[in-house]
Amino acid sequence: MRFIADVKNANAVLQWDQETYLPAKGAGLRGQQISTLSEISHRLLSEEELGNILQELLSKGDLSPQQRRNIERTNEDYLKNKKYTSEFVRKLSEQINKAFHSWIESRKQNSFSVYEKDLHALLQLKKQEADILGYQVHPYNALLDEFEKGATIELLDSTFHNLLPTLKDILDRILKQPQVDNSFVKQSFPKQKQWEWGMELIRHLNFDFAAGRQDISEHPFSVSFNRNDVRITTRIDENDFSNMTWSCIHETGHALYEQGLPEEQYGLPLGEACSYSIHESQSRLWENNVGRSKKFWQFYFPILCGYFPAQLENITLDQFYKGLNQVNPSAIRTEADELTYHFHVYIRYELEKKLLDGSISSHDIPAYWNENYKKFLDVDVPDDRRGCLQDVHWSHGSFGYFPTYSLGSFYAAQFYQTAKEQLKELDGEMENGNTSSLLSWLRQNIHSKGRFCTSEDLCNHVTGKRLDVNYFINYLLDKYVSIYNL
Amino acid sequence: MRFIADVKNANAVLQWDQETYLPAKGAGLRGQQISTLSEISHRLLSEEELGNILQELLSKGDLSPQQRRNIERTNEDYLKNKKYTSEFVRKLSEQINKAFHSWIESRKQNSFSVYEKDLHALLQLKKQEADILGYQVHPYNALLDEFEKGATIELLDSTFHNLLPTLKDILDRILKQPQVDNSFVKQSFPKQKQWEWGMELIRHLNFDFAAGRQDISEHPFSVSFNRNDVRITTRIDENDFSNMTWSCIHETGHALYEQGLPEEQYGLPLGEACSYSIHESQSRLWENNVGRSKKFWQFYFPILCGYFPAQLENITLDQFYKGLNQVNPSAIRTEADELTYHFHVYIRYELEKKLLDGSISSHDIPAYWNENYKKFLDVDVPDDRRGCLQDVHWSHGSFGYFPTYSLGSFYAAQFYQTAKEQLKELDGEMENGNTSSLLSWLRQNIHSKGRFCTSEDLCNHVTGKRLDVNYFINYLLDKYVSIYNL
Repeated sequence: MRFIADVKNANAVLQWDQETYLPAKGAGLRGQQISTLSEISHRLLSEEELGNILQELLSKGDLSPQQRRNIERTNEDYLKNKKYTSEFVRKLSEQINKAFHSWIESRKQNSFSVYEKDLHALLQLKKQEADILGYQVHPYNALLDEFEKGATIELLDSTFHNLLPTLKDILDRILKQPQVDNSFVKQSFPKQKQWEWGMELIRHLNFDFAAGRQDISEHPFSVSFNRNDVRITTRIDENDFSNMTWSCIHETGHALYEQGLPEEQYGLPLGEACSYSIHESQSRLWENNVGRSKKFWQFYFPILCGYFPAQLENITLDQFYKGLNQVNPSAIRTEADELTYHFHVYIRYELEKKLLDGSISSHDIPAYWNENYKKFLDVDVPDDRRGCLQDVHWSHGSFGYFPTYSLGSFYAAQFYQTAKEQLKELDGEMENGNTSSLLSWLRQNIHSKGRFCTSEDLCNHVTGKRLDVNYFINYLLDKYVSIYNL
Repeated sequence: MRFIADVKNANAVLQWDQETYLPAKGAGLRGQQISTLSEISHRLLSEEELGNILQELLSKGDLSPQQRRNIERTNEDYLKNKKYTSEFVRKLSEQINKAFHSWIESRKQNSFSVYEKDLHALLQLKKQEADILGYQVHPYNALLDEFEKGATIELLDSTFHNLLPTLKDILDRILKQPQVDNSFVKQSFPKQKQWEWGMELIRHLNFDFAAGRQDISEHPFSVSFNRNDVRITTRIDENDFSNMTWSCIHETGHALYEQGLPEEQYGLPLGEACSYSIHESQSRLWENNVGRSKKFWQFYFPILCGYFPAQLENITLDQFYKGLNQVNPSAIRTEADELTYHFHVYIRYELEKKLLDGSISSHDIPAYWNENYKKFLDVDVPDDRRGCLQDVHWSHGSFGYFPTYSLGSFYAAQFYQTAKEQLKELDGEMENGNTSSLLSWLRQNIHSKGRFCTSEDLCNHVTGKRLDVNYFINYLLDKYVSIYNL
């Protein structure tokens, strides 16, 4: 399994390089090299001999719970992987590469039609993939399982249908109140200064720079080649420091999880993150629950002002805190506030389901997109780039991924509330810029567990309850009632 | 073969990253990931089925000369590769990783003894490798063949024995003359300015930045993942601009070769460089024959002065030219002038032969080293770091590599003389900073040929003669007679 992990991690290095340092003309063969490594790791993970070894191990009696879990999960991965042929893996990887480049081109031209053909071909492969994997009720369930084991559209539908009316209600109340000002965000913030500020922030949050690095890329992301080499990226908008600041915190949240996985379990399930939604719970906990709290900025705001004294000269901590939590329906998901964010996810989730069951075709995407942004957020989508082309995920073949973003926020609220109850000193520490005990708590309760159990079981174990969106609703209410005097 | 090339090139990305951006703690597992990919490419290149296909292709009658050559060379590689077991490949790769890290540590501690044990273990593996490959006369021949097909110690011994007395004679004559001044090199040259100067220089030399990039590393190197992604690195010494300048030109020479290989031959012998010595002939031709010539600096010196006006204020082009060609025996190979350089190579070459045939042991290296630097160059080696620890090559397992450095210089002189004879406009173009027709000549005569023939045959083909060191001697004499008034 370590041998296979080496190949997968090597491939992740190639992908990291592709997003950070690859020269333009290198894209074609890089795509091929990535496909080749994908094919190799698939071959290795479907070798007959591995299956036999796993069967033998499964029948053993004298295993520790950790050993047993490693074997069971590996066997699940093996059986799933066996369903694919090498040809399909390669074809999919190549089509992803194609779609990625035509997505980039379509953004340049600001026209969905440039992307449509390759996205359509990719969608056909994803439908095939759902058939290969098998599913109950809806093909979306097959793909969802890839990102969130055990989740189903039944669960997601009911979660969203419970949540959205409440969110809508809070939103309506907010929109009736006077808007808070966040115009200080949009000034000139020199690149180099932003970079230095971001690096200081990350260091404070205990990102281990001996076991990772930060670079610049078009779209911020995090990637791990093992717990001792975890990389994050950011982007800098010279006219808006918030972009960089919260993307740094978000990616650091992902990275802290990876840097906290058990070292001796490299290549084994217990050395891997629990799930995409739990991964996202870590990035969001740091980005939002911590990084958009007033206590956090009590410590960091003066440091930030040291970097940008002129720009923040007349801003008080209170104005700053309110401004960074402004609620304002907009077209761009990554810039959305914590409340309207989930409408972005929901719209795409519904769209993905329809694309997969064939009730709408790729051609209809822009119209569907724009109509639903109007319907749910009362937002007029100005163009495709700021509409259905805004996210990279589809071009990576990641259908079924988005719901984990919302689940991540819900888990984050539940985890953070539990941490606050268990760590009595947390508020005081936060005011002093000390997040070490929070990190230790996450390490002990979540990071060190690896992929021992499902998201649901982990949540139950850590918080004593199954996932409950009321934690999230209460968290939002608590915040917005005071900011908007609801 | 393209599939195998993908794996090898992926591994090269991992190695590039290791030397440029890898965080400290990532070194251990990175070494393992590299070993895993090495093992996989070895496995793929020794599959029975590939051998059968090659046999079948070899027996075909209707092949073009290019096709035939591709098949023959691939078959040679295949048969050679078959001699190794996967276990040996992995063991060697792991020991190289170990030796690399203890070499780094030994340099930190400035003590050969830290390195000795791992170097010894690596040497034992290299001796085994020589036995696995088989050889005539001397185990060195087996390893030499890896870097320079067809070369033998017989050939090298006679080349060096012909050349060195002449070099010694020129050196003695130079040392009797007044020394030229190069103290302008040792001033403060700010990092960022040097970087910008280097980038401008590289761009002028037609390095294609859409198909490559330059980064910083501890030791300058070039590496190619395919002709559309060729990377070079440099290092910057703030107290000496020459280090960076000529390493940029040198690595660009390597890169121009790689960027000029035929694209459609990716993964096949005709898409690869001819040999290490021909590779080195390209870097040295640009670094020395071009980059240390007066004509070249007629154009570039004013540009350089634009970057460092204060530092070069009172220096004339003539002083500059003489200074950068100063001959001065020293302990460090990479800083050596074009004349004494070959004593560095010779000393290591002799030492490597003795290490391989067992006439001296690893333990004796520092003593042998220091004694021979005294004997051949009258240099007192100040410490291990500036002595036998100065070069990385052994820790990469590269025994038999160094002679290609000297051969590269000799080929470069012969190629450059031929180019000058064939390109009547060359001198005039050079004065105007235009090296395009020289590059075209190299592309047409050398780069585009790939690994169609051996170094010797290529030389014969391009220059009408076999390798003749008199080209190199005449080139040196021509330069130093005028600089030192010999």
